[in-house]
Amino acid sequence: MISKAEINFIRSLADKRSRNEHQCFVAEGRKIVEELSASDFFVRNIYTTDHVAAAGSDNYVAVTAKEMERISMLKSPSDYLAVVDIPSYRADYEELQQRLVLALDDVQDPGNVGTIIRIADWFGIKDILCSEATADCFNPKVVQATMGALLRVKVHYCNLETAIKAIGSPVYGTFLDGESAYSSQLSQQGVIVMGNEGRGISDKIARLVTKKIFIPPFPEGTATSESLNVSTATAIICSEFRRRVSIFCK
Amino acid sequence: MISKAEINFIRSLADKRSRNEHQCFVAEGRKIVEELSASDFFVRNIYTTDHVAAAGSDNYVAVTAKEMERISMLKSPSDYLAVVDIPSYRADYEELQQRLVLALDDVQDPGNVGTIIRIADWFGIKDILCSEATADCFNPKVVQATMGALLRVKVHYCNLETAIKAIGSPVYGTFLDGESAYSSQLSQQGVIVMGNEGRGISDKIARLVTKKIFIPPFPEGTATSESLNVSTATAIICSEFRRRVSIFCK
Repeated sequence: MISKAEINFIRSLADKRSRNEHQCFVAEGRKIVEELSASDFFVRNIYTTDHVAAAGSDNYVAVTAKEMERISMLKSPSDYLAVVDIPSYRADYEELQQRLVLALDDVQDPGNVGTIIRIADWFGIKDILCSEATADCFNPKVVQATMGALLRVKVHYCNLETAIKAIGSPVYGTFLDGESAYSSQLSQQGVIVMGNEGRGISDKIARLVTKKIFIPPFPEGTATSESLNVSTATAIICSEFRRRVSIFCK
Repeated sequence: MISKAEINFIRSLADKRSRNEHQCFVAEGRKIVEELSASDFFVRNIYTTDHVAAAGSDNYVAVTAKEMERISMLKSPSDYLAVVDIPSYRADYEELQQRLVLALDDVQDPGNVGTIIRIADWFGIKDILCSEATADCFNPKVVQATMGALLRVKVHYCNLETAIKAIGSPVYGTFLDGESAYSSQLSQQGVIVMGNEGRGISDKIARLVTKKIFIPPFPEGTATSESLNVSTATAIICSEFRRRVSIFCK
């Protein structure tokens, strides 16, 4: 049994403003809730229709199916919904300099951000720098779409220009006049910038790019004005970076 | 000025059943409508709030902004909406044998189908075979998402098993126990099968696969149970096939 105020509070977390104010987000589904509980994330409360599970623990709250329907953001609510603290990561630039890092320059669609987090997870990219205007990764849609990858990949919202300058080169970015990603020298440390869905990489970030790359269409030279979707391009670029050091590739 | 019956007819095309019955679909936005008009597609009618454009031609219908709102499937209607015949392509298996062809085995999400059509277009894959249960590419969301790629890529709905058997080997499919896509022999003709979002490639299609491939995670051996999204995986696989023959790669 939960109060009306609590229901309203949970529902309010669909909005970024409320998430920022309360510094927490919602995750739904048994698997993700269990993974979050076992992780370093701080889970405030777990609302569940599974009253046996709820009986034992302090932060479990037994709810009815009707109540779950009211707090859930899903069309088909699951048995588990957790309210979880938004983690605060310290971006250690010296550490990031040793690694491959993704940087999202105003990627606006939450679906793309979710897909990119899953791609980063698959390719062992542990950190994503996001400009302030990039879609919030704690948006309920992103949390559902990332399927746990959000537990392993750190997403840092920051002033992207300052962060990239602090990390230093190489800075890769995709541009129509870039060099073929297939034959470019690609290192295993550096920043890979992906741009906004409509306008690509912004001018102020483009100035920091030290190596322009490009995904060649097939046959070569047939690129239309319509480019690949940003998450699709991220997948291909990350795969190409990692292919170079794949043990199966030697 | 359009009749209520016409408004209802256009709105009904949001549903696959009505599209199949009437063998037509809706496309919105000036660019795509112009591209369709200049293509081999048969455009039945173009509804537009641009009354100057509508004055000259037979198949243009001038509508008010209010009427456009009623017939549009978009949140922010554009100035142009076309009702277009669904093309009927003959799949020439002998011709397909010479090429690289994608095959979608029950890909259910319209967004994924749209993204995959754009990927095919980028990588010069001219034909996509789809199982009957694959999401309809003439769904308004897919038409908007493909951004013109639907004009260049032929999507064939068919009995996938029969079609793949008719084309013959090699048949590529992604499986967790497949060989690394980075080091596999990949030919420039054959069928690349992509599976359903939840259950992957079905048993009956899996039996036709002659080469199992796999996108290696990084570092190797760290694949979690959560695989890459089907459109992401399609992007990486298609890129890898075409990379092998990239002129910039030699």
